[in-house]
Amino acid sequence: MGKGLTKRSEDYSKWYNELVVKADLAENSAVRGCMVIKPYGYAIWEKMQAELDRMFKETGHQNAYFPLFVPKSLFEAEEKNAEGFAKECAVVTHYRLKNDPEKEGKLIVDPEAKLEEELVVRPTSEAIIWNTYKTWIQSYRDLPILINQWANVVRWEMRTRLFLRTAEFLWQEGHTAHATKAEAIQEAQQMQEVYAQFAQEFMAMPVIKGVKTEHERFAGADDTYTIEALMQDGKALQAGTSHFLGQNFAKAFDVKFASKEGKLEHVWATSWGVTTRLIGALIMTHSDDLGLVLPPKLAPIQVAIVPIYRGEDQLEEISKVANQLAVDLKKEGISVKYDDRDTHKPGWKFAQYELQGVPVRIAIGPKDLEKGTVELARRDTLTKEFVPKNEVVEKVKQLMVEIQDNIYQKALDFRENHITAVDDFEAFKEVLNTKGGFVSAHWDGTKETEQKIKDLTKATIRCIPLDTKEEAGSCVLTAKPSSQRVLFAKAY
Amino acid sequence: MGKGLTKRSEDYSKWYNELVVKADLAENSAVRGCMVIKPYGYAIWEKMQAELDRMFKETGHQNAYFPLFVPKSLFEAEEKNAEGFAKECAVVTHYRLKNDPEKEGKLIVDPEAKLEEELVVRPTSEAIIWNTYKTWIQSYRDLPILINQWANVVRWEMRTRLFLRTAEFLWQEGHTAHATKAEAIQEAQQMQEVYAQFAQEFMAMPVIKGVKTEHERFAGADDTYTIEALMQDGKALQAGTSHFLGQNFAKAFDVKFASKEGKLEHVWATSWGVTTRLIGALIMTHSDDLGLVLPPKLAPIQVAIVPIYRGEDQLEEISKVANQLAVDLKKEGISVKYDDRDTHKPGWKFAQYELQGVPVRIAIGPKDLEKGTVELARRDTLTKEFVPKNEVVEKVKQLMVEIQDNIYQKALDFRENHITAVDDFEAFKEVLNTKGGFVSAHWDGTKETEQKIKDLTKATIRCIPLDTKEEAGSCVLTAKPSSQRVLFAKAY
Ligand SMILES: [Zn+2]
Ligand SMILES: [Zn+2]
Repeated sequence: MGKGLTKRSEDYSKWYNELVVKADLAENSAVRGCMVIKPYGYAIWEKMQAELDRMFKETGHQNAYFPLFVPKSLFEAEEKNAEGFAKECAVVTHYRLKNDPEKEGKLIVDPEAKLEEELVVRPTSEAIIWNTYKTWIQSYRDLPILINQWANVVRWEMRTRLFLRTAEFLWQEGHTAHATKAEAIQEAQQMQEVYAQFAQEFMAMPVIKGVKTEHERFAGADDTYTIEALMQDGKALQAGTSHFLGQNFAKAFDVKFASKEGKLEHVWATSWGVTTRLIGALIMTHSDDLGLVLPPKLAPIQVAIVPIYRGEDQLEEISKVANQLAVDLKKEGISVKYDDRDTHKPGWKFAQYELQGVPVRIAIGPKDLEKGTVELARRDTLTKEFVPKNEVVEKVKQLMVEIQDNIYQKALDFRENHITAVDDFEAFKEVLNTKGGFVSAHWDGTKETEQKIKDLTKATIRCIPLDTKEEAGSCVLTAKPSSQRVLFAKAY
Repeated sequence: MGKGLTKRSEDYSKWYNELVVKADLAENSAVRGCMVIKPYGYAIWEKMQAELDRMFKETGHQNAYFPLFVPKSLFEAEEKNAEGFAKECAVVTHYRLKNDPEKEGKLIVDPEAKLEEELVVRPTSEAIIWNTYKTWIQSYRDLPILINQWANVVRWEMRTRLFLRTAEFLWQEGHTAHATKAEAIQEAQQMQEVYAQFAQEFMAMPVIKGVKTEHERFAGADDTYTIEALMQDGKALQAGTSHFLGQNFAKAFDVKFASKEGKLEHVWATSWGVTTRLIGALIMTHSDDLGLVLPPKLAPIQVAIVPIYRGEDQLEEISKVANQLAVDLKKEGISVKYDDRDTHKPGWKFAQYELQGVPVRIAIGPKDLEKGTVELARRDTLTKEFVPKNEVVEKVKQLMVEIQDNIYQKALDFRENHITAVDDFEAFKEVLNTKGGFVSAHWDGTKETEQKIKDLTKATIRCIPLDTKEEAGSCVLTAKPSSQRVLFAKAY
C-alpha cells in the first residue's frame, strides 16, 4: 500500500521527496534547482493565497507589482542586504541571442548585446521598491504605504529540495513605509500575528512566535519577527518572517518625508513574506506513511466519492445517489470529486486519495443502496463508519471541523512534547541527537557562543519566544549569566 | 480640470501616457522597459484575473507553475519559436556577485560563477513546458492535459509603452496537449471564444475574431486565432491570441503517446494567452479627455461617495446617511468608497474620481439631507440627477448594468463605423491616413504583397475574420484574384 512510499521511520527525507512526487504536488525540472509545481500542488498554493490575500486586505494592504530585475547599482545600495544576497544572485548580462555561425540551428549569446549595467533577478524586492517609494513619498500625508506583491523570486541554492529550498520560488512580499518607528514595529508585529493565525487556523500547524537573534536576522533588518514550526522528524522550520527594517532602506535610498511639524525625516520600513515553502511545512506537519494528510481548509478536494460496482446497471444506480450527494455537498461549499472512472479499481482509488490526503472518502456499493447508507472514511484517523444517506451532509460538515481540529491538536501535542528545557551542554546535545525538537536553554547573548553551538551541534537559535519569561540562569555552553531562555533546534 | 490631461485630439499618445500615470495605474521603473503596476492598476488586473481564471476553470483547465528560466538548449529546440524570440531574450549567464576588489561597497559579477549553460528568462513557456510534458505523457489515457499558468515573462523591447509594450509583463499562458488534431483545433478555437466573451462582457470592448496570416502567426504555430479590438485613435490592438501548434513542439521535444490502437503518435498542442496589455486596451477603448472610463464589471471602486459640508456637525449628519448607504450598496455586492478625507475639497475629489473612471459618484450635501435625496453622477455620460435616498440602491444596481451596456454600445458603434470596405489602393491609403480603423480589402494571399502593403502604409493584416464571406475580387495592391476580404489596420 501507500504506493511503495518509504516509511518515515526508515528515512524521513526520502519519504518526503517520494511523497511530493507521488502525490503529484511537484517535481524537479530541467533547470537546476527550479521545480515544476503540478496542478494538485498549485491548487493548495491557490487556497493558501486566497486566505492570505484576504487577511492582507483586511489589514489594509493593497497589491501591486514591481519589476523582476534589480539594476546592480540599486541592488548594492543597502550594503547589508546586498551582502546577504550577493552570493546567490542570478544575473542577466545580455539581452539577445543570435544564430551560432558554427552550428546551424543553434543559438549563442550575442556579445554585442551586453547590458551596460547587469540586472539581478530579484532575490527579494526591497531595493527596487524603495527606489520607487522614494518618488512616492514627500510628506507625512503620503504615509503609510501598505503594499503587498505576489511574485516569483530567485536565490541560487546549491542544495535544493522541492518546496523547502528551490532556486526559484513563489511568495508574497509586503513592503510598508511609515512615519514613525512605533508604527513600523507595530506593522511588523501585526503581520507576524497574521502569519501565525494563518498557520494555525488554516494549515492546522502550531507555531511559536518569536524574535530572531542578530545573527539569524534578515540582511538589512533591525529586527526579524518569525513564526517557527516543528516538523515530525524533530527539525524546526521557519514558516514566515516579518522584518522591522528601521530606516536602513530609507537611508540607502534617501527616502525622506516632511513631518507634520515640517521637519525632514527618514521613513521607517517593514517587509514580510511567506513562500511556497509553506507547502513543504504542511506536508511534514501532518502526513503519514500512507501519504499526505491535508487540513480540510486547504484541501483542493475535501471529499472523494468512489462507486463500488459490477456492471453498468449498478454503476448507474450508484451514480444517482453519488451525484445527488455531490450536489448537496457542493451546496454547503464543500469541494467534491465523484470518481466514476472505469479505468481504475476502487482499491486503487482508495490508495490514491489516501496518498493525496483527501480528508474524507465516501464509498458507495450495492449493499449501501439496499441499506440506504454510505461508507465514510476519515483520512486523519483512518477510521470508517457507515452513515445513513440522509445524514451524510451534516456528518461531512461536522468532519471538516473535527479533522481540522484533530490534526491541529495532534501537531500541537507533538510540538508541546518536543520542547525540552535543558541546563547543561551534555543534555543539550543528547536531546538534540535523540529526541529532537526545540531545546529551551539559557544563552549568554553573544554571537560567538551562538556560532560555537551551531558548529558543535548544527543547532541554531530559532527564536527568542515572545512569551518567554525573565529567568535568571547561566548559558548552556559558557555558563555566563543569562536572563531568559531561547529556543534552539536543528532546522530546515 | 482633468488634472491638466492633454486632449486626445491634440496628441493621443501623450494623452494615453499621461492618463496612465495620473490615474495612478502604472509608471516606468528604474529598469529599462519594465513598469511598476501601482495598486489601482493592479486592482483592475486582479478583477480581470478573477474572471478569466473562473472561465478557464469552467472550461476544464487547472493552474500550475513552471520555471522562469529556460536552458538555452531547450529554448532552441523548436526552431521557428526560437528564431522568433531570440532577438529579445534576457539571458542569465552568472549566478553570483562578489565584492569589487577595487571599490569598497560595490559588487561585480563573479567571473568564476559562470553558468555552464546560459538560461533564457522565459519570453513564453512552450519549450520548458513541452520538455516537462514529455515525461507526463505515455498513453492516450494521459491526454488531454489542460493547464494554465499565471506568470511574468520578459521580451526585451527597444521601444516600450506602459501596459502596451513592456520588457516584463504579466500574463496567463495556457498550454494543452491532445490526442487528435481536431481536438487541439477545437481547444484553440474555444479559448479564442473565451477571450472574446471576456473582452465583450467584462471589458465592454467589442472584438473581431479571426485568424492570423502566416506572416503574423505566433512563431511555432500552425494557426493563430486572434481577437482584435479597435482603439479610439483608429489603430487596432491584438487583445488575445490562441495558437494551434500542430505537432511542432511534440516533434521538437519528441513527445509521443500510445494511441488506443497501440500506435505511437506525436501529441497535438495549443497555447493561448492574454497579458497586462489588456489594461492598455481597456483605457484606450473607453476613456475621455477627463480621464478613465471603466466598465462597472472591472472597476475597483464602483461607487464613490463624497460629502459636501461645512463644519463637523454637518459632516456627522451626512456621514450617517453615507455610511448607511455604503452598507446597503455593499450588501448588493457593489464596491463603495466613502471619501470623508478632510485634506481635500469636494471639487478635487470629483475630478479625482472622474480621472480614475469610477462609474458612479454620489454627492451628499446639507440640502440633500433636507430633501432626502442624493446627487448621483454617471462617469460615462457625465450626467447628474437627484435621486430619493430610498431609491439609490436600486438606481445604482440598474446603473451598473446600464453603464456597462452603454460603453459597450458606444465602442461597438465606433468600431462598426470604422470598418471600411475599399477596392483600390488610393482609397486604401486615404482611409488609413484620415479615418483610420479597419480597412476591409481583397488580398492576393502572398507574403510579398502583405509585406509591401506594410512597407507602403504601415498597415498589417490584423486577421482574416471568422465570419468573412466568400467574395470574388481582386487584390487591392496587385489586382490578382482573391476570394475573400481581410482586415488591414495600423496597430499597437
Ligand atoms: Zn538620507
Ligand atoms: Zn519525434
